[in-house]
Amino acid sequence: MKLSIVLSTHTTQFEAVAFEGDFEANVAKIAKWGYDGVEIAIRDPGLVNADQLEQVVKRHHLTVPAIGTGQAWNEEKLSFTDRNPVIRRKAIERVKSHVPLASRLNALIIVGLIRGITPAGSGHERSMALLLEALKECSRVAAEADVRIAIEPLNRYETDLIHSVDEGLDLIRKVSADNLGLLLDTFHMNIEEPVIEESIRTCGDRIFHFHVADSNRWYPGGGHLDFDTILGALYSTGYQGFVSGEFMPLPDADIAASQNIEWLRKIKTSNCV
Amino acid sequence: MKLSIVLSTHTTQFEAVAFEGDFEANVAKIAKWGYDGVEIAIRDPGLVNADQLEQVVKRHHLTVPAIGTGQAWNEEKLSFTDRNPVIRRKAIERVKSHVPLASRLNALIIVGLIRGITPAGSGHERSMALLLEALKECSRVAAEADVRIAIEPLNRYETDLIHSVDEGLDLIRKVSADNLGLLLDTFHMNIEEPVIEESIRTCGDRIFHFHVADSNRWYPGGGHLDFDTILGALYSTGYQGFVSGEFMPLPDADIAASQNIEWLRKIKTSNCV
Repeated sequence: MKLSIVLSTHTTQFEAVAFEGDFEANVAKIAKWGYDGVEIAIRDPGLVNADQLEQVVKRHHLTVPAIGTGQAWNEEKLSFTDRNPVIRRKAIERVKSHVPLASRLNALIIVGLIRGITPAGSGHERSMALLLEALKECSRVAAEADVRIAIEPLNRYETDLIHSVDEGLDLIRKVSADNLGLLLDTFHMNIEEPVIEESIRTCGDRIFHFHVADSNRWYPGGGHLDFDTILGALYSTGYQGFVSGEFMPLPDADIAASQNIEWLRKIKTSNCV
Repeated sequence: MKLSIVLSTHTTQFEAVAFEGDFEANVAKIAKWGYDGVEIAIRDPGLVNADQLEQVVKRHHLTVPAIGTGQAWNEEKLSFTDRNPVIRRKAIERVKSHVPLASRLNALIIVGLIRGITPAGSGHERSMALLLEALKECSRVAAEADVRIAIEPLNRYETDLIHSVDEGLDLIRKVSADNLGLLLDTFHMNIEEPVIEESIRTCGDRIFHFHVADSNRWYPGGGHLDFDTILGALYSTGYQGFVSGEFMPLPDADIAASQNIEWLRKIKTSNCV
């Protein structure tokens, strides 16, 4: 099982990012605990020194499976579905601007909350049309660099756009791009999927990335999800990617990160790469 | 197992109320499906004809285990923790105004979202102090009429005030009123409680009322909660009250209500009253 954990290049307000602050010190700790990779949350790749980032990660023998983009929503309110076409264009360009770094690191790009939320007075159908167009453009540009994009279903309280595997797969079919898939997150799935394991099997080879957090968004083992059956279902699909920890830094970030890997390393699943 | 389901006396925007519209027609359907009781959501008891309400319920041989008060928040934004002392006073008086009807029906009064959410610029500690004072006053007035009040832990997305059994019990200890307990709701517990069954046992005789909805807020059986173990834990505490359905009216209200009772009637728990 290839394990990674989310780390931010900048401080952030987003509560579910496990670490913030001194980047290299955190990368060193993540490597020391035995993680294979680090998922990096980046607000704006234009502000990141890519050489330095790559060196730090390589120095600690980690890979970067995925780049998170949600901080552009949290801190700048950029989204694909804003009322203002200038903001929508900025959001699309921001996602496209991740492509060179993602290509260099062999990472995929996550579309989480940067898709936005239907604005008051607008309609869900209009947002879905905007989201579709944005994903078509981003997927096309990413495909030219052989980069994959994963859209993450989020629970009903976080957005009205794409809650479940079914809704995600339906959108992907409409975009019709081989490099577009889903990022499944167990915290959101616990709220939205009737049966988590069945939804994982339905998603199959369209699972491009996988987040773990327990039912209460603590590290796995902090709540009541059954990670034996969940990860068993994941690997039964032939999944070859990372299992990436994105949870609240509770009781503190270090304890959460070390408990997560301790819990997941105990799980014996067949077909596990 | 005594089963009830939520019904509103007025139309409401709150999505988890199972029925709205023609009150007596809905009461008749609820009785026909085999329910023992009907939990009634009332925005303002001053607008309800109590004689008529009691007659309708009696005509269909139902009891009323609980009265919901959340519509006063949803539709009038009354809350115990508003910035404005006039609004706070209105919210307290509104809850107190439910006491005569609750006494007459032998129902308890639910404190859900009428407790409010900490306003921007204010602090959690201040809200908790206001909530404590409001509950002291409401509990005292209710006690004079031998009426019980149940505060419902709600998940983190709905309010910052009281998410879990632990937080609820801590607040109840501070209020120090025998007629104040908790209303546990399985949809919220799935998100907030590390282990649902353990939290139920911890809550013990402070469980005054119990809501069922599945993990996705569909009727039980629509998601992945284990109602065998959950209801087993509930009755192991000596619980004598109702199990009340509060879920989304999906695929429609009638199907949800009939599926709920069909699913719960199949459950065999020991100690079940």
